Amino acid sequence: MKIELASSYGFCFGVKRAIKIAEGSSDSATYGELIHNADEISRLKDNFNVKTLTTMSELKDENNIIIRTHGITKNDLKSLQDSGKKIIDATCPFVTKPQNIVEKMSSEGYDIVIFGDKNHPEIKGVMSYSKRAVFVVLSSDELKGVKISKKVALISQTTKKIEDYQKIAAYLMSRCNEVRVFNTICNATLENQEAARELANRADVMIIIGGKNSSNTKQLYLICKQYCFDSYHVENETELKKEWFVGKKLCGISAGASTPDWIIQNVVDEIEKFEVKD
Amino acid sequence: MKIELASSYGFCFGVKRAIKIAEGSSDSATYGELIHNADEISRLKDNFNVKTLTTMSELKDENNIIIRTHGITKNDLKSLQDSGKKIIDATCPFVTKPQNIVEKMSSEGYDIVIFGDKNHPEIKGVMSYSKRAVFVVLSSDELKGVKISKKVALISQTTKKIEDYQKIAAYLMSRCNEVRVFNTICNATLENQEAARELANRADVMIIIGGKNSSNTKQLYLICKQYCFDSYHVENETELKKEWFVGKKLCGISAGASTPDWIIQNVVDEIEKFEVKD
Repeated sequence: MKIELASSYGFCFGVKRAIKIAEGSSDSATYGELIHNADEISRLKDNFNVKTLTTMSELKDENNIIIRTHGITKNDLKSLQDSGKKIIDATCPFVTKPQNIVEKMSSEGYDIVIFGDKNHPEIKGVMSYSKRAVFVVLSSDELKGVKISKKVALISQTTKKIEDYQKIAAYLMSRCNEVRVFNTICNATLENQEAARELANRADVMIIIGGKNSSNTKQLYLICKQYCFDSYHVENETELKKEWFVGKKLCGISAGASTPDWIIQNVVDEIEKFEVKD
Repeated sequence: MKIELASSYGFCFGVKRAIKIAEGSSDSATYGELIHNADEISRLKDNFNVKTLTTMSELKDENNIIIRTHGITKNDLKSLQDSGKKIIDATCPFVTKPQNIVEKMSSEGYDIVIFGDKNHPEIKGVMSYSKRAVFVVLSSDELKGVKISKKVALISQTTKKIEDYQKIAAYLMSRCNEVRVFNTICNATLENQEAARELANRADVMIIIGGKNSSNTKQLYLICKQYCFDSYHVENETELKKEWFVGKKLCGISAGASTPDWIIQNVVDEIEKFEVKD
């Protein structure tokens, strides 16, 4: 069996930048998980004493606070700033952008529609910048019957699929006088998705590596599953099963934006150890 | 055979308004056809001496100029105003709106994409208000390979199908950072389209009445044809053929926004004269 990596996969600009910031900020704490990868977070804790804390009260004894790549809410940021702590901002610039758009558009009288998961930290942060009604939806069905302004600004979570985003825009176009669509899906996401789609179309088994709480990894998995029935989402090599590879000719590999190369290498090594014949 | 009219059809607000203006402006001339209906234009000529002239030079001896429902270009309007003629503006307010949007958005640095027919007078008028690049297209295919700004304002001809408009918006979303979509398709168009679709879905022959140069009538015909194979576009009763109705149970009727009731009545009367049995 041949193993092939997608032509684009893994770490994006924002994640690389955040890890570099964290590695340069020993003895600090991140507010929430810096990136959605448990193994990489453990490595930062072990090697640089970068702790992951999840509540404001836990943070009270910390002096150096790293803001996670997904960003945090405007209020939380203000509380941290007001408490006099040193803020080390690792928010991905591609997340800062939708935060700014939401703030500006809501000031200009647009209702805000966000295509995303309202429980995802990125979206909690982005929506907190709105000064008026915000509707966070995963499909246009959720907008049916909802009273919405005739002027709407539409923003997407950075890691979503463009096809789903287009459907929501189409629906809003039919209901509103003006829909101001911002393409806030990040390029790394689009490139990884495109490459995964191309490879899944040829592969007979696909392994997608990334945190189970990683939005972009879940999207990669869903795309691969459309093109290759035997697609599996794993966090690391311990979840692999030999039987997935039996009788397969081409094993494709893709990985989410928060998956470090060393985990991808471990997965490839483990698959090679299975010594599966075509 | 039963004859049924669509629940919404024929004259829209802008056409009614333009005819009222023309009837109140005897001994005047319109620059281009007031509306896209030759029979109604003849009636206005015969009863109110409202002439239809098509070039600026023909207009030079006229004092009272009516601006057609579709509007004219900014330059032509200025020439007429500068020549001291009395301008009677019958431009549909739903056409004035996209003219204003194009002027404002192009001033704010947006490239302009118009979904429409570049030879249609409405579009010639609307595009003339742009201060920068304008791309007039009938489908997203025409935008492939075209160098376009990252900020685009998208406008539709008032009489187009929303489904086609949505496809163009979807394509631009994937290429631009911001697509500001204005739904400039007029409500009368949407309502007539919806009603025609509903009726064509039940009818076994559909007659769509309107000028052969009428954009909205052509759209109605295309929609009906999707749902009812035996759909026919006629300008008036003289084009009807008895064999279209033989063996049919339900004849549906729709008409474009510039089709007067008296023509629709003539068509219905003629079909009834065929005395077709189910």
